[in-house]
Amino acid sequence: MNLADKIRTIPDFPKEGIAFKDITTLLKDPSAYQEAIDRIAERYEDKDIDLILGVEARGFLIGAPLALKLNKGFVPVRKEGKLPGDIVKTEYDLEYGSNTLELHKDAIEKGDKVLIVDDLLATGGTVKATIDLVEELGGEIVEVAFLMELGFLDGREVIGDYEVFSLITD
Amino acid sequence: MNLADKIRTIPDFPKEGIAFKDITTLLKDPSAYQEAIDRIAERYEDKDIDLILGVEARGFLIGAPLALKLNKGFVPVRKEGKLPGDIVKTEYDLEYGSNTLELHKDAIEKGDKVLIVDDLLATGGTVKATIDLVEELGGEIVEVAFLMELGFLDGREVIGDYEVFSLITD
Repeated sequence: MNLADKIRTIPDFPKEGIAFKDITTLLKDPSAYQEAIDRIAERYEDKDIDLILGVEARGFLIGAPLALKLNKGFVPVRKEGKLPGDIVKTEYDLEYGSNTLELHKDAIEKGDKVLIVDDLLATGGTVKATIDLVEELGGEIVEVAFLMELGFLDGREVIGDYEVFSLITD
Repeated sequence: MNLADKIRTIPDFPKEGIAFKDITTLLKDPSAYQEAIDRIAERYEDKDIDLILGVEARGFLIGAPLALKLNKGFVPVRKEGKLPGDIVKTEYDLEYGSNTLELHKDAIEKGDKVLIVDDLLATGGTVKATIDLVEELGGEIVEVAFLMELGFLDGREVIGDYEVFSLITD
């Protein structure tokens, strides 16, 4: 199955000139969604991983099924004010304004092997912020995985030395 | 396994006097998370369902794995400004201020049999808004399912005549 065909492109969203990759069409096709999770899982089934981190909100849609498939714990990285326990937080710049991500302090112990998962690698700002939080808690990042990567935005450069895996590249 | 024991209660979050039910402890325990999904899935495996709707963001964590387990399409109900296609939207009151939920118009066809899923039934405002959106598009609501219900908040009364299933009741 060509999974790229299951993702539709919506022009001028969220603003003029942006071609938005909409994964809702893939999610609505159970065979495509299952195949996407299975193919990402294949890459990690023999890797030494303790936890899978998914970034709110669409990262939950890839990270959570992946965690269940691989029989690993799932940890959500959330937007500001959503996590009730003690947290670490980081603020990062968006094109206009900024965004804050938070992670429970007790979600990761020093040395835990962590796979970070999100749906889309674009400019890499969100995933870089997530990497910073995991490093702050002493987690070891095994790899960073995406359903889809927009290669022309060079998000990999922001991620630095960590391995990046993208199931689909555009 | 007593799944209720896997959910921790954090006092005074998001404000004084509220005892917040934190499911991150369940999500981090792969056996508990898997059992929760499997037990909800058991209830629906022989039911006639076309689509599973999950409400952003924690509803994704229950609805998406459930959709994959039951081999049904998953449809996200999202907060304002996140869905790129044509949408229907509804605004509902919170204790302070209001919230808006959106659903892609082409996500549900008239007569589609829809299971609505969220993590927690509290006062029911979010799920009532979701019901309104599904009805607006002509979807038939099979049932409304939650990981956990706070019975003392009487959220069921807001849901009206639809069947409600909660895996855990507090």
